[in-house]
Amino acid sequence: MMDSKKINLSEQDMPKSWYNIQADMPNAALPPLHPATKKPVGPDDLAPLFPMGLIQQEVSKERYIPIPEEIREIYKLWRPTPLIRALRLEKMLDTPAKIYYKYEGVSPSGSHKPNTAVAQAFYNKIEGNRRITTETGAGQWGTALAFAARQFDMESEVFMVNISYKQKPYRKVMMKTFGADVYASPSELTRAGQKILSENPDSPGSLGIAISEAIERAVGDEKTKYSLGSVLNHVLMHQTIIGEEVLKQLEKTGDFPDVIIAPLGGGSNFAGIAFPFLKAKLKEGKDLRCIAVEPASCPKLTKGEFRYDFGDTAGYTPLLPMYTLGHEFMPAEIHAGGLRYHGASVLASQLLKDGLIEAVALQQLECFHAGIQFSKAEGIIPAPEANHAIAQVIREANKAKEEGKSKTILFNLCGHGYLDMQAYDDFMAGKLQDHHLTEEQLKSGLRKLEGMPVV
Amino acid sequence: MMDSKKINLSEQDMPKSWYNIQADMPNAALPPLHPATKKPVGPDDLAPLFPMGLIQQEVSKERYIPIPEEIREIYKLWRPTPLIRALRLEKMLDTPAKIYYKYEGVSPSGSHKPNTAVAQAFYNKIEGNRRITTETGAGQWGTALAFAARQFDMESEVFMVNISYKQKPYRKVMMKTFGADVYASPSELTRAGQKILSENPDSPGSLGIAISEAIERAVGDEKTKYSLGSVLNHVLMHQTIIGEEVLKQLEKTGDFPDVIIAPLGGGSNFAGIAFPFLKAKLKEGKDLRCIAVEPASCPKLTKGEFRYDFGDTAGYTPLLPMYTLGHEFMPAEIHAGGLRYHGASVLASQLLKDGLIEAVALQQLECFHAGIQFSKAEGIIPAPEANHAIAQVIREANKAKEEGKSKTILFNLCGHGYLDMQAYDDFMAGKLQDHHLTEEQLKSGLRKLEGMPVV
Repeated sequence: MMDSKKINLSEQDMPKSWYNIQADMPNAALPPLHPATKKPVGPDDLAPLFPMGLIQQEVSKERYIPIPEEIREIYKLWRPTPLIRALRLEKMLDTPAKIYYKYEGVSPSGSHKPNTAVAQAFYNKIEGNRRITTETGAGQWGTALAFAARQFDMESEVFMVNISYKQKPYRKVMMKTFGADVYASPSELTRAGQKILSENPDSPGSLGIAISEAIERAVGDEKTKYSLGSVLNHVLMHQTIIGEEVLKQLEKTGDFPDVIIAPLGGGSNFAGIAFPFLKAKLKEGKDLRCIAVEPASCPKLTKGEFRYDFGDTAGYTPLLPMYTLGHEFMPAEIHAGGLRYHGASVLASQLLKDGLIEAVALQQLECFHAGIQFSKAEGIIPAPEANHAIAQVIREANKAKEEGKSKTILFNLCGHGYLDMQAYDDFMAGKLQDHHLTEEQLKSGLRKLEGMPVV
Repeated sequence: MMDSKKINLSEQDMPKSWYNIQADMPNAALPPLHPATKKPVGPDDLAPLFPMGLIQQEVSKERYIPIPEEIREIYKLWRPTPLIRALRLEKMLDTPAKIYYKYEGVSPSGSHKPNTAVAQAFYNKIEGNRRITTETGAGQWGTALAFAARQFDMESEVFMVNISYKQKPYRKVMMKTFGADVYASPSELTRAGQKILSENPDSPGSLGIAISEAIERAVGDEKTKYSLGSVLNHVLMHQTIIGEEVLKQLEKTGDFPDVIIAPLGGGSNFAGIAFPFLKAKLKEGKDLRCIAVEPASCPKLTKGEFRYDFGDTAGYTPLLPMYTLGHEFMPAEIHAGGLRYHGASVLASQLLKDGLIEAVALQQLECFHAGIQFSKAEGIIPAPEANHAIAQVIREANKAKEEGKSKTILFNLCGHGYLDMQAYDDFMAGKLQDHHLTEEQLKSGLRKLEGMPVV
């Protein structure tokens, strides 16, 4: 009979600050640029989109930023989340490695996303806004924002990437249950959406397009602001409560990770678990590998270019210095909708460029196979995004076995897959396939970067 | 800004015993009878269906039965579960009542069902069985059994009520992900299923029919046993870990419930949270109301008869003394599939007859409305079964407001609704309706009780 172990943290021990890695990076991230002037954007440029509280966090160099009590009180609905030693998975893999996972699926929306959604809703609320617009891929982020807006009695409007809107109809119902208005993107509601639809009425959509639509709706109304579920510095910072909790939880076991693994779509999931540990590497030279896992069908970290690009497809955002496949890149219709984004966050991109983190691209079938192995061992069916982390964990655990070496692996189980059962059904029925990006597809995306400022 | 509060329990404080209410009931439950001889059944009669470890628990009068360490180790994957003070719901209702809910949705299958599934799988495993068959309504139980069998490397086979098989296709996928074989019931695999299908090829099925099918498969193979997700004494007892945990959690707040509310399908959910508290009423005369909530479309407690009846439709089980609508009663196709059962557990039935608990029947629309209110306040979307409890909680909270009296209400949030979003979609689209049982429907079910031994 196997053993298994949850490492809980009491509400009293829930971290009181977010960690801001900008305080400790050897090379500071480059500033976002105004697309017309190519000059760094200032707070006033961002004010139509975001509340000032978040804009200040975006550029802060403070190492720790206190979490307001109002946010902590809502976090307590599900936080601190459990850290779990995956003893059953270790046994199934017959590996000498210790595997820990942080389980963020216990949140109201079933993923890590409410960590920033609640924070963003709070700063919007105290600055008098009444409505938040956003994009969503697989629906995890949209559900989180719908929940968070509701908690502060605000309205929410979600543009959901068309392919996910079809693949995951129940996510839409969930958002509506929390009171949100939900639209398939591209939609006829915005100029950006209309333009795409006129070129391709059957467009599967992309996060880049949905962002353009949500931004367009926000700039049209003074009391409406835009909210982004990943990529930006403040979003990544809000997620560090994940890793800050794990630091305290691992103190109880005496372990420190040798490898940290998380999927990377925009970067907030990865940052959330990795950044608080990276601090020890940046400040004390601690030996630690942090691996970002991306889908082979959307490989910005392993096959993209590090340079300035738009965050959205229509080109409404400032230019961000990041690894990108080009803002018009259209990823294959994989089930891990949250990973179908053309770029990586500025902070993760800079760290990768500086050799402080690693990246790997995996195919869909290996990831689903890993997810089912994990389900059978640990009893939790993961979201398709999380399966990317699990597949890499299994690779690392198998390597440890081959080498006969013990090591401690930590990964973020960022969400459950209860709303993704169609994907599992398709996988078990043999209907899914791997997606091999051609050189031509890759080049056609990167070609759109011509004329962008080089880093 | 509102406050909210999780009351956690450490793994070390997880209860080490189940509570067996048979030790404390003023009137012992009557014995099950053999349908042919009308004599009490003995252990040998049950041996083809159940392992001896469970048969012994079924008839035990011991007050506490230790939970084997192997079961506790699996429980720790998700237990102890949180007790949560629903401060946001209280505020929304503007009630002086304190509302607590125990949240069992954090389990691998998303409901309280694994509490007994793991125990049943364990006793089957140690007695050398290799396969477990069972029925499932909405799919909560089948998922739990599939998970539990997998944990002990056993096979599982699930007969899923046809209407739920159609309404909740993703539950089926989830069971398959855990490795189970899943069939729509009635099926052509059994004589019981064939008979129903020959009379009505479009039969929506019922729990009673699915039980018949699962039993038939178990008796045909020596190493295959049958497992029931509710109704039986040992099943109810395994669920008491819920209430035993709440006892410890409420000790930390200093509160004791005035009212305990849970949905009742077979009775295990209700028993799980109520029985450990009923002990104080039975032994010390403590003032406490325990309310079982059933759907108005399947009202065995409020409109059924207390007498001997079969537990299944084909008449394979022993005769059980219980409140029943007749074992051929066909409930309307409500979304709360777990409550579509014609009878109530022997223990809950006896307690109701003795006036120690109460029952109320509610309509579907009121329950869904309550579930959405709860979602908006607390961030968790409940299973349709759980909505029955929430609707009654809201009634009690409103009564407290009218009377200007504070009271403490405790309910079991037995599962989340992530796999039930179609039901919410239908409700929000105005497609659901209440079901008013006619006198004729009621009588036609009860007529089948003629000739059954009277209690």
